[in-house]
Amino acid sequence: MKQVYFDNAATTQVRDEVIDRMIDVVKNNYGNASSSHSFGRSSKVVIEQTRKTIAQSLKVSSGEIIFTSGGTEADNLALQCAVKHLGVSHIITSKIEHHAVLHTAEDLERNCAVQVSYVNVNAFGEIDYKHLEELLQLKGKALVSLMLVNNEIGNILDIKRVGDLCKAHNALFHCDAVQFIGHFKIDLQDVHVDFIAASAHKFHGPKGVGFAFIRKNSGLKPLILGGEQERGLRAGTESVHNIAGMETALKLAYDSLDEEQAYILDLKSYFINELEAAIPNVTFNGLSNDLEKSTYTLVNVCLPFSAEQGQIVLFQLDLKGIACSKGSACQSGSSKGSHVLAELLTDSEMRKPSIRFSFSIFNTKDEVDYVIEVLKAFNS
Amino acid sequence: MKQVYFDNAATTQVRDEVIDRMIDVVKNNYGNASSSHSFGRSSKVVIEQTRKTIAQSLKVSSGEIIFTSGGTEADNLALQCAVKHLGVSHIITSKIEHHAVLHTAEDLERNCAVQVSYVNVNAFGEIDYKHLEELLQLKGKALVSLMLVNNEIGNILDIKRVGDLCKAHNALFHCDAVQFIGHFKIDLQDVHVDFIAASAHKFHGPKGVGFAFIRKNSGLKPLILGGEQERGLRAGTESVHNIAGMETALKLAYDSLDEEQAYILDLKSYFINELEAAIPNVTFNGLSNDLEKSTYTLVNVCLPFSAEQGQIVLFQLDLKGIACSKGSACQSGSSKGSHVLAELLTDSEMRKPSIRFSFSIFNTKDEVDYVIEVLKAFNS
Repeated sequence: MKQVYFDNAATTQVRDEVIDRMIDVVKNNYGNASSSHSFGRSSKVVIEQTRKTIAQSLKVSSGEIIFTSGGTEADNLALQCAVKHLGVSHIITSKIEHHAVLHTAEDLERNCAVQVSYVNVNAFGEIDYKHLEELLQLKGKALVSLMLVNNEIGNILDIKRVGDLCKAHNALFHCDAVQFIGHFKIDLQDVHVDFIAASAHKFHGPKGVGFAFIRKNSGLKPLILGGEQERGLRAGTESVHNIAGMETALKLAYDSLDEEQAYILDLKSYFINELEAAIPNVTFNGLSNDLEKSTYTLVNVCLPFSAEQGQIVLFQLDLKGIACSKGSACQSGSSKGSHVLAELLTDSEMRKPSIRFSFSIFNTKDEVDYVIEVLKAFNS
Repeated sequence: MKQVYFDNAATTQVRDEVIDRMIDVVKNNYGNASSSHSFGRSSKVVIEQTRKTIAQSLKVSSGEIIFTSGGTEADNLALQCAVKHLGVSHIITSKIEHHAVLHTAEDLERNCAVQVSYVNVNAFGEIDYKHLEELLQLKGKALVSLMLVNNEIGNILDIKRVGDLCKAHNALFHCDAVQFIGHFKIDLQDVHVDFIAASAHKFHGPKGVGFAFIRKNSGLKPLILGGEQERGLRAGTESVHNIAGMETALKLAYDSLDEEQAYILDLKSYFINELEAAIPNVTFNGLSNDLEKSTYTLVNVCLPFSAEQGQIVLFQLDLKGIACSKGSACQSGSSKGSHVLAELLTDSEMRKPSIRFSFSIFNTKDEVDYVIEVLKAFNS
């Protein structure tokens, strides 16, 4: 059966070169990077080289990159430890963040007497900057946590503007950049941000590894305590092959970024045009059909189908070999709908099926045609 | 140059069959296990199958196994969350535990008003059970955290006895089993233990994955919050290839356990005999030369060399291609000596070089001969 993978915001196919690198490392660098003998040192070299590669791509210093088990852990590190160690008593976030941020903030509110405020967003998921400024004026040391690219609707945050506001109000700024790193470049010297979170499996790297950028002299202490790994900021034997795979994935992503960005943007644009032609009343959630203000990697569509059709559309897509998502993958386990769309859409819009299609360099226009064909069949 | 890897307690060479399995999964199961489409489901199957394999090996139910990024995270989960969510106000541990437990306990003492007590150990690293019982009578909900096999001196804990004491005093019991799982079998129905921690890379599996056993209805809540993965107990996209590799590694370990155990025990015994013959005044730390009361995988020797010789012995071993450890690998980054040996040895003993040699099925008697030869040269 034809198989179309349009769920690249959930996770991506691992590049062959990444797999080759991982095999090489898992076979030949099995030493514990904390061991002082030659086996250990050769693993240490792999890790430190990766740290340098990542740091250079962000224009930061190597000591500011901490390897984690993924984006979620990096988000938890920033939020939990900012409260625990940096005196943060007020977290400002939005209702359309990833659960790694939202659930952590809620937990801190419940258990650590932290105040959590939610900045207003409009029906397109755009941040209300005036409201953010008001919230920043409330008393207490604040941490702002807003994501760079929304994982469901693709909106791109004006990170510089948020950073400047945080700076002006002496607030810390954490930015979940999981959907951004490997897809866009950023110079962190230009942006006032204290922490970012990234995940390798979103840019054709392995699952189970990511990193946190932690601005120098932040004062942050570890979430996971134990050995002296990661300059004392994250204990636990490093996953050397995963870290190496992340390096190769990031290098490949940035080496051919312009070309791949253009290719995927063209696919997205084609998808939007074809879908609008096939299903004239389709609408798009968030800013995901704005090619400038949303990531080129995804589009979130609201199909003008009945609630009954809605029940079966994802099921039918799956039967036809098409992988896409009704929310973020992390929510699929629960029976609840998307908390992001619930913030943006009216009740009647929420009754229609909304689907996120997300693309990579491994997708083709033929696949778009096939998916549109399948969706069109519902529109009769 | 000859290379001898005698640091298997730090980490192990990954088995070829494990690597093959990881390659297969990383290529063919790249779906996000939380996605409801076919790509996601096939990853979910890999994860749930592994959970079942692990659960069966411990005679527990699948729902009691939670995948983590390794042993350290599993230790942190048990300790931090027992304090945060289960009302624990008193942690009872020992000074010879792994830093993943010790540093976490110290942090909880500093920041969460938890009392930490250290059960006495004798010069062989044996627990004083009477003292443990006294400590269990102190007021406040207690969590005992003692490791099953000490990573530096190899002592095996009487887990049943500790479990029974905990049960009698209504205390929780966490057991770091990182050096035990994959090397010994255990039936957790027979033992009163609430949490255990394990790590794949200690039994020829990949680095960056491990698991926690969390007894059913424990009430524990997650350390890392976010998505609904791992039944809500550990958020973050699962490292499917690492989890699969862990399954294969554990299966292989347990399928040929008796045979491999006998092979490695014979190596250890040969090492001890040859070393005693070559260097008559050698002594052994902890119970590591007791073939019954310590793990068959390691021996910790105290060499009757001067402090000056001690400075260069590890350096020379490394130059000769021999990998071993002066403490646990996790400490190598720091300049401090072993905190475990510091508890057991006299000052004059501490001035002599102590080295841990740890073995696996990939080692041979020829390698032992080579290492003894090199050590002998110092004894002149």
